[in-house]
Amino acid sequence: MTERIQEFLRDRRNKGLDVEPCLVVDLEVVRDNYQSFAASLPDSRVFYAVKANPAPELLAMLASLGSCFDCASVAEIQMALAAGATPDRISFGNTIKKERDIARAFELGINLYAVDCAAEVEKVARAAPGAKVFCRILYDCVGAEWPLSRKFGCEPAMAVDVLDLAKRLGLEAYGISFHVGSQQRKLKSWDRALEMAAAVFRDCAERGINLSMVNMGGGFPTKYLKEVPAVVQYGRSIFRALRKHFGNQIPETIIEPGRGMVGNAGVIEAEVVLISKKSEADDVRWVYLDIGKFGGLAETMDEAIRYPIRSRHDGAEMRPCVLAGPTCDSADVLYEKMPYPLPVTLEIGDKLLIEGTGAYTSTYSAVAFNGFPPLKTYHI
Amino acid sequence: MTERIQEFLRDRRNKGLDVEPCLVVDLEVVRDNYQSFAASLPDSRVFYAVKANPAPELLAMLASLGSCFDCASVAEIQMALAAGATPDRISFGNTIKKERDIARAFELGINLYAVDCAAEVEKVARAAPGAKVFCRILYDCVGAEWPLSRKFGCEPAMAVDVLDLAKRLGLEAYGISFHVGSQQRKLKSWDRALEMAAAVFRDCAERGINLSMVNMGGGFPTKYLKEVPAVVQYGRSIFRALRKHFGNQIPETIIEPGRGMVGNAGVIEAEVVLISKKSEADDVRWVYLDIGKFGGLAETMDEAIRYPIRSRHDGAEMRPCVLAGPTCDSADVLYEKMPYPLPVTLEIGDKLLIEGTGAYTSTYSAVAFNGFPPLKTYHI
Repeated sequence: MTERIQEFLRDRRNKGLDVEPCLVVDLEVVRDNYQSFAASLPDSRVFYAVKANPAPELLAMLASLGSCFDCASVAEIQMALAAGATPDRISFGNTIKKERDIARAFELGINLYAVDCAAEVEKVARAAPGAKVFCRILYDCVGAEWPLSRKFGCEPAMAVDVLDLAKRLGLEAYGISFHVGSQQRKLKSWDRALEMAAAVFRDCAERGINLSMVNMGGGFPTKYLKEVPAVVQYGRSIFRALRKHFGNQIPETIIEPGRGMVGNAGVIEAEVVLISKKSEADDVRWVYLDIGKFGGLAETMDEAIRYPIRSRHDGAEMRPCVLAGPTCDSADVLYEKMPYPLPVTLEIGDKLLIEGTGAYTSTYSAVAFNGFPPLKTYHI
Repeated sequence: MTERIQEFLRDRRNKGLDVEPCLVVDLEVVRDNYQSFAASLPDSRVFYAVKANPAPELLAMLASLGSCFDCASVAEIQMALAAGATPDRISFGNTIKKERDIARAFELGINLYAVDCAAEVEKVARAAPGAKVFCRILYDCVGAEWPLSRKFGCEPAMAVDVLDLAKRLGLEAYGISFHVGSQQRKLKSWDRALEMAAAVFRDCAERGINLSMVNMGGGFPTKYLKEVPAVVQYGRSIFRALRKHFGNQIPETIIEPGRGMVGNAGVIEAEVVLISKKSEADDVRWVYLDIGKFGGLAETMDEAIRYPIRSRHDGAEMRPCVLAGPTCDSADVLYEKMPYPLPVTLEIGDKLLIEGTGAYTSTYSAVAFNGFPPLKTYHI
């Protein structure tokens, strides 16, 4: 929560514009984050995960700082190009692509594609002949607060076949990628993943495929309620692991921070719409906000991410509350299994500040569910 | 799946417009559904739950048929008015309302409001003096495929106090509401709920509050994979339960179908983007579509709703698949715990028809997650 955001929100309130929730992102924090990544991992290229927050102002600033961009769709590629990135600084990092979207990306000059199976390699070979591909490898995400499903990647043994096929089809078998799980707080996780990566490099070399690059993905955490290691600690751990597993043949590396780049730069201001109990005897209050799961806080799904929440009552006695959104959807409850402590003095109409909401909020919000508009955003 | 939808989709394909997924809703099916509700529950007023699908064409058709509208927000109220509904046919059915939104609704002529606690009654009394209120009562939703949380409603004993307060504050304590849970296939569920409702009527009468109305909510199912009772059966059961619990003093009743009104009228056409395995030994295929949890299929959350899926391979041998969406979000998986049987001959590029998707799809879709646009919709 920066001075600049506080001032912006104060100004918005004074102008009477605070009738709806909003997200405010401080671009100076994003700049600091970018510079931390660049300094802590000086030999890695930073590919910002555009999906975390694709605001044009944010992309333009990162482009001017020299960032590269990990894009999930043609639309995101076009946004990165519009922000000033050249095609050589953009990867089409989604392993699930329509062939016509690959062709469109190739027309736009994109030369780096993620794959995780033979069928996807065939599509890239047809639609983007000669391009570089990297194969995503499955990795189990112990220690991540938002562990990943098995949706992306293949077993390491299959990755070798996939890269072999890529080479045979005239593509450049460029490297591999993994993801340690989002909001990963265990530094050791990268060590295990890089050990696996090095093994794939050796297996490929035995088949005459010389890989150049390891895409170490994202997973860098943002601070919610628990402390997280600083980026510099991640940098040191990762460098040690690279040395340990690749010796003096450290490959080119890429990182793809999303949450770690913008999460802590954003704050959502919400309003308390209602505070109630279900019966006179209830000791847990229900607190209803004007933002919920469908308005941008989708990552509270399964209560995975617990955002820090502040109000003008900070310092008052706290009691556990069930926190819910404003829609007529009974699934629109943020924290219930593990109720959230809020001040006993909290009142209807109070503003709450939901911190660490710069990533995976604005674009997740529903287009018009229950008639509520998508989350308003300001990048300052 | 109607002839009209098939023809529309054929035409769209012929014109080469089928590059993105879309939802097609057949308004004639909605018309039939409306008429079934009206005929099966002739003494109940139908308040269509606008949140299920607020397409202007659909609202206009329902308004012309005489439907009333259950609205979750001022925006939905404005949509219902724009569709031709008069204010006396609109309820502000969300128990969570900002006071300024109540005031706005009152200005627009709305006179019927949902409440479930004292604080909400106080807001309505200030912002909509003299209006009618009904109190939502908690009800446990055994038998519903999409059971509701405790988010809405209060215990029956508290409801009496809430309605008493409404009366003292100059509002009209008009009735109560309950919801048996969405996609409720147990006819008995309404019987138990109406028994509870009748008890609240008696308790209120003892306090000098004469209630007039029972809002029996929604919950009427749409046919997904399992058979569901016909609306006429619901009508008979409900009428019997009303007789049993209210004798010859049957109150005015309201129903609020949403899913039951539009669910079976809609079909989503999606494209198979990728079919893969995670290792050579895997016997479950992963099938990735161009629509997922964030593109309109949010109700696959926890794999609650299983949509029927058809393709040109119907009749071929079926094998279980994990079904996932196109985004770079690992939570964007539709069916995994209980894999979905799909034809072994299914190929990349094939179109799938996802049936029963007329409700709770279009407006749930994310505004721009991963750069993908919201779900395209056609109401024909």
